[in-house]
Amino acid sequence: MSDDQAQELTAEEQFRQQALDYHAYPVAGKISVELTKPAETAKDLALAYSPGVAEPVREIAQNPDNAYKYTAKGNMVAVISNGTAILGLGNLGPLASKPVMEGKSLLFKRFAGLDSIDIEVKHRTIEEFVDTVANIADTFGGINLEDIKAPDCFEIERQLIERCDVPVFHDDQHGTAIVTAAGMLNAIELQGKKLEEATIVCLGAGAAAVACMELLIKCGAMREKIYMLDRKGVIHTRRDDLNEYKKLFANNTDKRTLEDVIEGADIFLGVSGPNLMPQNALKLMADKPIVFACSNPDPEIKPELAHQVRNDLIMGTGRSDYPNQVNNVLCFPFIFRGALDVRASEINDEMKLAAVDAIRQLAKEPVPAEVLAAAGEEKLEFGPEYIIPKPMDPRLLPKVAKAVAQAAVDSGVARIEMPENYML
Amino acid sequence: MSDDQAQELTAEEQFRQQALDYHAYPVAGKISVELTKPAETAKDLALAYSPGVAEPVREIAQNPDNAYKYTAKGNMVAVISNGTAILGLGNLGPLASKPVMEGKSLLFKRFAGLDSIDIEVKHRTIEEFVDTVANIADTFGGINLEDIKAPDCFEIERQLIERCDVPVFHDDQHGTAIVTAAGMLNAIELQGKKLEEATIVCLGAGAAAVACMELLIKCGAMREKIYMLDRKGVIHTRRDDLNEYKKLFANNTDKRTLEDVIEGADIFLGVSGPNLMPQNALKLMADKPIVFACSNPDPEIKPELAHQVRNDLIMGTGRSDYPNQVNNVLCFPFIFRGALDVRASEINDEMKLAAVDAIRQLAKEPVPAEVLAAAGEEKLEFGPEYIIPKPMDPRLLPKVAKAVAQAAVDSGVARIEMPENYML
Repeated sequence: MSDDQAQELTAEEQFRQQALDYHAYPVAGKISVELTKPAETAKDLALAYSPGVAEPVREIAQNPDNAYKYTAKGNMVAVISNGTAILGLGNLGPLASKPVMEGKSLLFKRFAGLDSIDIEVKHRTIEEFVDTVANIADTFGGINLEDIKAPDCFEIERQLIERCDVPVFHDDQHGTAIVTAAGMLNAIELQGKKLEEATIVCLGAGAAAVACMELLIKCGAMREKIYMLDRKGVIHTRRDDLNEYKKLFANNTDKRTLEDVIEGADIFLGVSGPNLMPQNALKLMADKPIVFACSNPDPEIKPELAHQVRNDLIMGTGRSDYPNQVNNVLCFPFIFRGALDVRASEINDEMKLAAVDAIRQLAKEPVPAEVLAAAGEEKLEFGPEYIIPKPMDPRLLPKVAKAVAQAAVDSGVARIEMPENYML
Repeated sequence: MSDDQAQELTAEEQFRQQALDYHAYPVAGKISVELTKPAETAKDLALAYSPGVAEPVREIAQNPDNAYKYTAKGNMVAVISNGTAILGLGNLGPLASKPVMEGKSLLFKRFAGLDSIDIEVKHRTIEEFVDTVANIADTFGGINLEDIKAPDCFEIERQLIERCDVPVFHDDQHGTAIVTAAGMLNAIELQGKKLEEATIVCLGAGAAAVACMELLIKCGAMREKIYMLDRKGVIHTRRDDLNEYKKLFANNTDKRTLEDVIEGADIFLGVSGPNLMPQNALKLMADKPIVFACSNPDPEIKPELAHQVRNDLIMGTGRSDYPNQVNNVLCFPFIFRGALDVRASEINDEMKLAAVDAIRQLAKEPVPAEVLAAAGEEKLEFGPEYIIPKPMDPRLLPKVAKAVAQAAVDSGVARIEMPENYML
């Protein structure tokens, strides 16, 4: 081991210990439940509990919508997981996913002021998971599914959307897809190409991959110009080992490998694993390619390696230390904020596309000094190194939430009107 | 309508509006989720979420107990209901019970510093309710069941205790029973009687009634000296309409009515409905009777009516405006505090009896000035008008929690030792 390697390990070890300490002290975990109403005097308690509480009970029994008026439901998002696909760590079970889910709750509060609580579910069958979540769903204003493995996540989300009266949103699918689409559309524009004409290679065929491709198709991409690859190579029509979700992307082609399909491709999306995109493959792409290497923390190809062989590309990763970070936090807090504020019954395509557009447009606006300071940048200007906003940009909340709320109203899934002067 | 009645209605209407306003403004509901860790900078978020959060995930995957170290689990109580027996209002469904459950969460925080979140469950069968709660139970440090109708609540609690690794406690049963037993034992002592020799009449045969009688038996009461009555009268061995829980209290007797059994009885416990105990029945009781009329807000017999016909009785009610309020809040926050602080796997009889004794003994101690002030009393001294502590007594937390934690350790259900200097 070289001195440099020893040094690196020590920094890693230090970060590891910091992360554990952060979670353990001064109290365990990252969230608490606090009171929003006075609860000191006997009078306070007579209003909060028996006998006063009987009044809101009666009001809700008469009209379920009154739960939004008299309880915390309308601002409360449940972050729910079974721990079958925790970050890049795999299936470690529900309890082990708890720090991630509490972390998500923390992000909901930090970025959108939403109250959020994590729920970890153990279950045997998909049916049992769905039943469990559907049975408790009315407790919350919305449900954010998280870290559930594919293909189970597709069926779970489909059934829960059908059964729940509140929005259900699998962030690993749609949060990723919305931010990816926003960045991709801006990159396409900057490269002077058209999404309708682009050949797209998607390395990875899990929840994020499928959702990204579906959303890009809704944005104009052509299904037959998409090549998706799983661990066995290109997904094509003659394979007999495909689940119904992969089948949707089976291409009638003789191409079998990444090298086969990358030749002449305009867009590469990596949602797979570290270092799976070789420099030689990148060389084969069309002029002015777009490469999103989103495997985290180690991308499919490191930006410095990519730039060694191509100087005409636009690149994004999942990392905060490179330009163009594709980060779900640009979307999920605000899409729920907008959905809950108009009591949307679901998060539909119109709302997702409104979020894509709002995120896209924000990247084209001048960046205020405080955002530059928070990002540690001297200058950020719409272009190849800045195609999507920074996660800490405080303009995301009003812009994205308002666009989503408006889309919910316009598409008829809002149950109340947009509040006057909303997000102004 | 007399002027007095009009006046009374107005005050009631005012309180009703106050209760609704309290729940609606300035924000809906009574609880929020807040962050216990910094979440401002990019570094904060790298520790709280990806990539730092992977460390506690791995630690918990290796050892589930680490969830107590790195997540909010160990201080978090779920308040869970299906809304089938909401306060005295009956079966209004899960969503309508939400204000009560949030209220319970508020009380957990206010009295014991426990984080608590409400979960309302819709379900078809008992089995489905149990599955749902068991599937999410690992999320929490303990589970407080609430407002579930009898006899379902007995079977639900039994199955959940068996299936969950964390304490499960149906407060309507055991919280009520613990506080009732504490008051009853002190009243018996003051009246110079023995519980073993007492004839007991229990009007009501629901969750609270069954639990109160079971716990009194564990304190020394004789099962054959208990007469329990449901809506059809005395529960006796020749009835063929009894569920298995009522059967336990079927008495081999020819007595059929309240008047039949009340003659010569030492103890009356009312957990039924307003004004069901007539003055004439009270006259028939033995010398120095004890009457707990716990129906709320209107007791089985009003104290002023009881005192008109008996001057040798000790009386308790569920109301704060009479002496000797039998209020669950004397117990449930502290029994969970003690159980969670030693990670008890259950709340067993030893812990319940320790809570009874701690509450009992506290009533015999001199009352500090601040407790008198909070209660609006000039003097409180152990005696017929003060057999149980006041709900606002801050000494309940250390006394009851410590007694419960010690009992958990002594009875072998604690998974960690009592913290050093616990509650000192």
